[in-house]
Amino acid sequence: MPAEMNRQILLASRPQGEPVPENFRLVETAIPKAGPGQMLLHTIYLSLDPYMRGRMDAGKSYAAPVGIGEVMEGGAVSVVVESNLAGYSPGEIVVARTGWQEFSLSNGEGGHKVDPALGPISFALGVLGMPGLTAYTGLFNIGKPKVGETLVVAAASGAVGSVVGQIARIKGCQVVGIAGGDQKCRFVKQELGFDECLDHRLPDLAGRLQGACPKGVDIYFENVGGDVFEAILPLLNNFARIPVCGLIAHYNATQPPQGTNRVPQLMREILVKRLSFQGFIVFDFASQFGQFVHDVSGWLRQGRIKYREDITDGLENAPRELIGLLKGENFGKKIIRVSPDPSKR
Amino acid sequence: MPAEMNRQILLASRPQGEPVPENFRLVETAIPKAGPGQMLLHTIYLSLDPYMRGRMDAGKSYAAPVGIGEVMEGGAVSVVVESNLAGYSPGEIVVARTGWQEFSLSNGEGGHKVDPALGPISFALGVLGMPGLTAYTGLFNIGKPKVGETLVVAAASGAVGSVVGQIARIKGCQVVGIAGGDQKCRFVKQELGFDECLDHRLPDLAGRLQGACPKGVDIYFENVGGDVFEAILPLLNNFARIPVCGLIAHYNATQPPQGTNRVPQLMREILVKRLSFQGFIVFDFASQFGQFVHDVSGWLRQGRIKYREDITDGLENAPRELIGLLKGENFGKKIIRVSPDPSKR
Repeated sequence: MPAEMNRQILLASRPQGEPVPENFRLVETAIPKAGPGQMLLHTIYLSLDPYMRGRMDAGKSYAAPVGIGEVMEGGAVSVVVESNLAGYSPGEIVVARTGWQEFSLSNGEGGHKVDPALGPISFALGVLGMPGLTAYTGLFNIGKPKVGETLVVAAASGAVGSVVGQIARIKGCQVVGIAGGDQKCRFVKQELGFDECLDHRLPDLAGRLQGACPKGVDIYFENVGGDVFEAILPLLNNFARIPVCGLIAHYNATQPPQGTNRVPQLMREILVKRLSFQGFIVFDFASQFGQFVHDVSGWLRQGRIKYREDITDGLENAPRELIGLLKGENFGKKIIRVSPDPSKR
Repeated sequence: MPAEMNRQILLASRPQGEPVPENFRLVETAIPKAGPGQMLLHTIYLSLDPYMRGRMDAGKSYAAPVGIGEVMEGGAVSVVVESNLAGYSPGEIVVARTGWQEFSLSNGEGGHKVDPALGPISFALGVLGMPGLTAYTGLFNIGKPKVGETLVVAAASGAVGSVVGQIARIKGCQVVGIAGGDQKCRFVKQELGFDECLDHRLPDLAGRLQGACPKGVDIYFENVGGDVFEAILPLLNNFARIPVCGLIAHYNATQPPQGTNRVPQLMREILVKRLSFQGFIVFDFASQFGQFVHDVSGWLRQGRIKYREDITDGLENAPRELIGLLKGENFGKKIIRVSPDPSKR
């Protein structure tokens, strides 16, 4: 079953603004051998996520950037091919940060086995993985939803936003999503059950948001930034909470917007309305993983959380799909199927 | 002892930028009579505080603005002259929000008796009053100081900043103050015992702050905004907390600064460093008043908190002194002595 060579996608150069295909390079290398304490993994599903754009820049972020000529970073679900690692056997399914490649070595660090009883194994990259944990921990630890409050989340059909909104509804909030295009908005309202979903591509988002949030906004789960943030700011109620999880609207920016420095106005809003802005990264809450999987897998089983994947075949398509993801072209959690899913044969 | 007339200072017009004397008007009116359930108070000490600038504007803030022709708002320590209110007797000292006037009526709401055993009665306007409670509750509820952390606070010789820094030192923090001018900085270091105090009027505040905070900044108690905030932002450590208590640098601004909108950069810092910004108003934590008075009066008695007042005689000087306060011309907690302090006779 394993191909004769390992295909990898490397970071070839750092993007200026939007990434282009030339920033990536597909190479073929020998399939590595598992040494002592290691296992050889064959990638099945590779996750594509907005944070990857940040890893392509040289600037310091919460993690070191990917080096030029290095394999692009990413989480993936794989099958164990060979194992010299106690507790792991060939044929088992694991999720780990093994990168954009068909084969990888792992010593098990930062990874864990996937329980196929909880759902399709690809869910370990989304609703039952890093994006789901991001939604769950940001919402509960920082957003602190209360019955009757209003929550707004953008990228509402995506891996994080869809889970944020559905959990907030389970907790009794009025939930307004924002998404790009009529198809996504209909999905968010009709399938995910949000109270409302607004298309940010249509005019006057600020006015429509105000109409959709007659009691103001108590929780704004920030995963986009930019114009959506500007439209939300005047609607925030006293004591509103803003978990800051992502800023996809800024990731491709090459320079800050000119005109007026609105920091003083933002600080004034924080003061007068007693707002809480708190940034977080999912790893800060890794210890809550067990509780998260317990709760969210339960809600999935009960049909109270729905989840959509947008799967593309072929590792070679990962660059194009990441470029599209950063423009909102995906519809649901973006995944690259690198090799066939053995659980579906 | 009471004068024949009541002198009051009214808001005559709303300032454009910095307040000017013409924004205020001194009037004489009859001394009111205490009706049922009321007491007549004679003002001894009137507090001047930066928040008063906000009350002079028409815009909505956390409290309604003072109306044109209305008595300027403010807290004051007074002596009871007549009382038809159960529990209050002539000669007792109370603190209440009675405004810029020599005599006032009160039904006791929003006020309380001053215990002269805890310190000079004027302390009820500062270290043992609203500014002290602001410092104490903002620091503990939002700043959450831990031994060995670095705290920065501006307006370090003022009523709030001086208490923030001294409590943080008691809790084991490295404390760096910022103040305007050499005299204040020497006071903050030598008398208040801060580890360092930097003069914001000298060049390269950002560079000097970096030198004074070799381990970065874990808590920035925000009471000024503007250039100080810009200098602090790059020094904030991961998981830093920023209680947002005041923005005196912006209060006289007539328009936002032009150039670059730094909101996206601020949001990125919040995300990447997992910063917590939280606005608060002292009234949000009113329930902690008892614990605050217990702790801070104890530290005062032990000499672990020192406190400086800047007292000017005469209600007629309140406008000039508020204008000066907004430019940092006061040195210590600014108070107007409206009538002689009976506890000092």
